[in-house]
Amino acid sequence: MAEAELKQSMTALASEAKAASRVLASLSTARKNRVLTQVASALRGAAGDTVIAANQRDVAAAQAAGLTAAMIDRLRLDRARIEGVAAALEHIVELPDPVGGIEHMRVLPNGLQAGQMRVPLGVIAMVYEARPNVTVDAAALCLKSGNACILRGGKEAFHSNVALAEVLQAALVAEGLPRGCVSLVPTVDREATLVLLGLVGLVDLVIPRGGEQLIRFVAENARVPVIQHYKGVCHLYVDADAELEMATNIAINAKVQRPAVCNALETLLVDRACAASVLPAMSAALRAKNVELRGDARARELYQDMREASAADWDTEYGDLILSVAVVDGLDGALAHIAAHGSNHTEAIVTRNYEHAQRFLREVDASMVLVNASTRFNDGGELGLGAEIGISTSKLHAYGAMGLQELTTRKWIAYGQGQVRG
Amino acid sequence: MAEAELKQSMTALASEAKAASRVLASLSTARKNRVLTQVASALRGAAGDTVIAANQRDVAAAQAAGLTAAMIDRLRLDRARIEGVAAALEHIVELPDPVGGIEHMRVLPNGLQAGQMRVPLGVIAMVYEARPNVTVDAAALCLKSGNACILRGGKEAFHSNVALAEVLQAALVAEGLPRGCVSLVPTVDREATLVLLGLVGLVDLVIPRGGEQLIRFVAENARVPVIQHYKGVCHLYVDADAELEMATNIAINAKVQRPAVCNALETLLVDRACAASVLPAMSAALRAKNVELRGDARARELYQDMREASAADWDTEYGDLILSVAVVDGLDGALAHIAAHGSNHTEAIVTRNYEHAQRFLREVDASMVLVNASTRFNDGGELGLGAEIGISTSKLHAYGAMGLQELTTRKWIAYGQGQVRG
Repeated sequence: MAEAELKQSMTALASEAKAASRVLASLSTARKNRVLTQVASALRGAAGDTVIAANQRDVAAAQAAGLTAAMIDRLRLDRARIEGVAAALEHIVELPDPVGGIEHMRVLPNGLQAGQMRVPLGVIAMVYEARPNVTVDAAALCLKSGNACILRGGKEAFHSNVALAEVLQAALVAEGLPRGCVSLVPTVDREATLVLLGLVGLVDLVIPRGGEQLIRFVAENARVPVIQHYKGVCHLYVDADAELEMATNIAINAKVQRPAVCNALETLLVDRACAASVLPAMSAALRAKNVELRGDARARELYQDMREASAADWDTEYGDLILSVAVVDGLDGALAHIAAHGSNHTEAIVTRNYEHAQRFLREVDASMVLVNASTRFNDGGELGLGAEIGISTSKLHAYGAMGLQELTTRKWIAYGQGQVRG
Repeated sequence: MAEAELKQSMTALASEAKAASRVLASLSTARKNRVLTQVASALRGAAGDTVIAANQRDVAAAQAAGLTAAMIDRLRLDRARIEGVAAALEHIVELPDPVGGIEHMRVLPNGLQAGQMRVPLGVIAMVYEARPNVTVDAAALCLKSGNACILRGGKEAFHSNVALAEVLQAALVAEGLPRGCVSLVPTVDREATLVLLGLVGLVDLVIPRGGEQLIRFVAENARVPVIQHYKGVCHLYVDADAELEMATNIAINAKVQRPAVCNALETLLVDRACAASVLPAMSAALRAKNVELRGDARARELYQDMREASAADWDTEYGDLILSVAVVDGLDGALAHIAAHGSNHTEAIVTRNYEHAQRFLREVDASMVLVNASTRFNDGGELGLGAEIGISTSKLHAYGAMGLQELTTRKWIAYGQGQVRG
């Protein structure tokens, strides 16, 4: 598409979304839930077959293009996965609607009653990669929180996404709502994303989800606000008097349970005061789980089956069964290491020392800081948010797991009886 | 300065600020308050004379450059204004410290105790215009909320700002704190601002304060997050059954009390159902206060002393005793007009109709929406925030008046007993 034409068509799409967002902002919870329930029911029926057929085109193209088996697996939709998507929709139906909730209402000295009302953000653009189930999840979370959304999925999942967007739009139209409530960017042209990221005044927020490269592309090119996380380089610090068994269990859980996710452990820090007594046993336990270890000089002195960590290792999100190990000089050494190499994602300490626990909680700058628990708990579902649209390591607006509430903002409201300012 | 050198010196400045922000993040309230109290006391003493002498250089230069009397008045610091700055510091000392406050703590089914702790944002850059008192106000609010700040004031106030920054830094050093807690950009070179706006990872937030042109410059060039408001085009909608006297009082207060501020009224909307009975009397009352009226055709039919509004008038923040007046078709007409021309700042309705009040509150997208009260109440001081760093019409992070709490974010924290994820 020519640049001017692309700009015009994306602006038209976003303007429709903006108009739809005004309708959504004051839509009743019951009507929003009816749309979501209808989508779940359509997916379980004939529409699910249409989606699967479209997905088969994407999968065939991916196979022809030589994508990895893991990527093709992430792309694939079958009846079981469609059922998962439908069940997730029904779960979102059950969640409380944040919109319209009023907080901090107080009566000012002049009698004016003032407080803050939760309102949707407006139009949210989602830019994401291969997994087509994100299309429905993101649309459902945006809809429930009263936001219109513009979806820009990966090119590998294009046909699947078109089919899923049609199911979503059919349910909206059946409820008498504008199609603009959920739109899909109708091209895989990267220029379309660039235009979208520049639509100040039409797009209120963009949330990129995917690899670091995608997220950097969005963050570097957006003129509209972005909430993102680049990567999770999460640390576990084992303090001098930590209980060995607890530290080992947490390290194994954080590293091994699901190594590819962002809240998995990447670096183990051990206080030199206890390193001789805990590091060999912890290392052996991790090796027994097939974790490759990469250590600094002090760690390698205490445990031999560990290759030398390079400077880059300390900043790497492996997403795999690999762990960096360093011996640090007490709590201050751990705090300095985390400040230098952390990614503001998830950091944990194992300790029995009250003051160290409190200092670690207070001084570490990360979206979640834990004492005596696995980094894997930094997750909207685990924290009781019901569902999450992502984890933010940006500090503005939301820091950490983002649920429905984080897709809203608060405006001030006031009920008066004729008050004027003196 | 050469571009590379400028980039290097601004990066060094921001890196010092970042290091200082780590110290500030866990600094006790008592020590933060001691710094603020010391600054107030220094300003009341000899340091105040130094500041006034520096200010006189700025004022003389401004006079020589032919700045308007209003601009020179905004620039000028005398003993009375210095006392005002000192009193504001003492007021900020009295405000509660938001940092470290813990919210929403709950025990999860696995026994993990999780909640959210208020933490500073980190490094806040303030980019502002002529008034030098902003230098101290902004630094004090950032300091109290645990943030380092980088100040970039207007070139007209450069010597005043240098003198004020020295007072602030002397108090920091006396308390054993790094000078990087408060830094002033040491040049009036616009390129320095451009570099500052691009320091992703070092600057956590930029807040521009000043005219629309400054704010657009910042918003369009920043790669770091920005919270801003461009302008306040505030409306008052007089509903069909509004009480004439209340509507008139509110319109006069909102327009006349301080016409230059952003929460002043710019457009009066009157329901056509009551226009014949209220518009002539309200217009006459406003004319009696020397307000120039610019109306649409229906308004001008009902009141003659009103020139024709141009298309641009509906989007103009006059900042002066000028008011646009339009007759609209009921609540829906008012909502459509505000959606088309509002600036997401402050909107008010005068009504006795319950449903209309509730719909207006819910459906208008603005940082503050009021029923039967003047738009002038959208102000941190009036709303009990104690002090404000500005009003945001961005929706992300903060929408409306921003006090100390809005200069913080919340990280998740968890106290465990060895929990791992199953």
